[in-house]
Amino acid sequence: MPEFRKDPVVGRWVIVSAERGTLPSDYATKKDKGEGWFCPFCMGNESMTPPEIFAFRKEGTEPDSPGWNIRVVPNKFPLFSSQPHRGMEREREGIFDKMSGVGKHEIIIESPDHDKELTDLPLTTLKKILFVYKMRTEELSKDPRFRYVVIFKNRGREAGASLEHSYSQIIALPIVPKGILEELNGGKRYHRDHDRCIFCDMVEQECQSGLRIIEENEDFITFAPFAARFPFETWIMPKVHMSNYRMIQQHQYQTLAILLSSTLKKLDIALSNPPYNLVFHSAPILGEDLPYFHWHIEIIPRVSKMVGFGWGTGFYFNPTPPEESAACLRGVSVT
Amino acid sequence: MPEFRKDPVVGRWVIVSAERGTLPSDYATKKDKGEGWFCPFCMGNESMTPPEIFAFRKEGTEPDSPGWNIRVVPNKFPLFSSQPHRGMEREREGIFDKMSGVGKHEIIIESPDHDKELTDLPLTTLKKILFVYKMRTEELSKDPRFRYVVIFKNRGREAGASLEHSYSQIIALPIVPKGILEELNGGKRYHRDHDRCIFCDMVEQECQSGLRIIEENEDFITFAPFAARFPFETWIMPKVHMSNYRMIQQHQYQTLAILLSSTLKKLDIALSNPPYNLVFHSAPILGEDLPYFHWHIEIIPRVSKMVGFGWGTGFYFNPTPPEESAACLRGVSVT
Repeated sequence: MPEFRKDPVVGRWVIVSAERGTLPSDYATKKDKGEGWFCPFCMGNESMTPPEIFAFRKEGTEPDSPGWNIRVVPNKFPLFSSQPHRGMEREREGIFDKMSGVGKHEIIIESPDHDKELTDLPLTTLKKILFVYKMRTEELSKDPRFRYVVIFKNRGREAGASLEHSYSQIIALPIVPKGILEELNGGKRYHRDHDRCIFCDMVEQECQSGLRIIEENEDFITFAPFAARFPFETWIMPKVHMSNYRMIQQHQYQTLAILLSSTLKKLDIALSNPPYNLVFHSAPILGEDLPYFHWHIEIIPRVSKMVGFGWGTGFYFNPTPPEESAACLRGVSVT
Repeated sequence: MPEFRKDPVVGRWVIVSAERGTLPSDYATKKDKGEGWFCPFCMGNESMTPPEIFAFRKEGTEPDSPGWNIRVVPNKFPLFSSQPHRGMEREREGIFDKMSGVGKHEIIIESPDHDKELTDLPLTTLKKILFVYKMRTEELSKDPRFRYVVIFKNRGREAGASLEHSYSQIIALPIVPKGILEELNGGKRYHRDHDRCIFCDMVEQECQSGLRIIEENEDFITFAPFAARFPFETWIMPKVHMSNYRMIQQHQYQTLAILLSSTLKKLDIALSNPPYNLVFHSAPILGEDLPYFHWHIEIIPRVSKMVGFGWGTGFYFNPTPPEESAACLRGVSVT
């Protein structure tokens, strides 16, 4: 049974699980698995995943059969137990705290076609994927055991993807991740002092200076953050205040899809299809419309090895100033 | 000029620098540089580094000439300006804070021999390296511009090492890294509530349970931390309270060298010479003997790709419970 463990000093939760059965030898042999293997996410292989939760599919086709466009399935190797009626046992082990690893882990297969990347998909499909993110977030938010839903995508093995076929992931957690708590606390502090949302102020300042803007449209801006930890770190943020991704407006699927697609294409061109992590930072499930938090997407291309003292000490060295990465990406034409 | 930039939301400092001159193309071409290249750290190539700061060398040999055993040099590509009399200009850019990038960055070349790893060195040399860490920390701590000194080692390109030749690094910073501040705050909170050091309690509990202990001797223990973020994450901690590495006792170079060498050998055997990051977590320069902080070494083998939602959200998934990694490493004989 996987469990959540809390670091007693800094309060960070970690999921510790042996259920995936990794042995030292799994780490030692780091050979590339090669291509040409059977892909459980391809059309026709539906039986290789757990039964689908949702799919956009042709009328008249059966669940878990071909004919779909986007498919949502439970992760076959979930990070935690998702037993429907299981509660959360909290326990103490001396000075340490832990609780049972209840959570939900879903996979969004973005296309039936093995070779299509997110950026190869038509805008209508991308809009549907963004809608699925919202729909699944809403659904998972109804479970009273959960406090946080995170949407993310790892592209490329170096970024943690286990399969080549393009997919995103949604995880529902019984805790709020420490990094999000810090953003909430920072936002709260600023709001208390200034009675304004720090992210709204950030959007305003970035729009005014233009220095770090990569692209924008009526609803969203793409920019390189002032204190970027990584080369070409790129954020996408709604221009109007909105604390939770669930609050996205119908017409914004279109404007977000356009900007997301274009941003990812620019990164692909500038950095030759880098591996990347894309994470939605959104408010916790409870708390409704927080005046001090503002959802956004953080995209981190995995182009540089982190230097050692970033690990664990939370200090980063970034050899590419965000003004330079923004200028570079602004200049990339995606036609 | 490199600069320190503060994330306005979470307060994390990042060094942003264009001085290393990285271009998008540097990231795009990620080819292995191959072996057989000229190594500036090898005996005989002393002129390829900036003039040495310190060396253990044969009597009668000149600085920056052959005849040394351990050599300390400034980093030829430092993260920041180290102009001796430069102050720290602090500036505001709208809602953002930044300051000039003053710091010091030194390299400890652990052996004149290109092929010797840290674990290949005789104990006497390892003891000298540990002494050099302390001596350089003390020296750098005298500069009133600095608040923190971090000692670390990246082994392997995947862990951020730029050269194959074995070396460690010491960096003096004008700020305390966020991760250390969090440990200080967590330690302070626990001390206020319990009037005890949380790390001392951790040592006691680990020694009692034995579950996560890998090895120990009279002065130090090696163990897998309860909420390990990474597979085979391993910490080395002094058994007796000591907040700063600078306070290490003369006889402890021996006991630490023995345990460090043996721990690294065990990891090498169990994981087939993994890349790793090794970081000393020590108290800030000021603050002398803090009752609530306890220096220790964190070793993180880079054996698994982090899953996406660890990035930026501060939430980790570890597929190898620390009890299992500890049992595995306990069982490795290094004779």
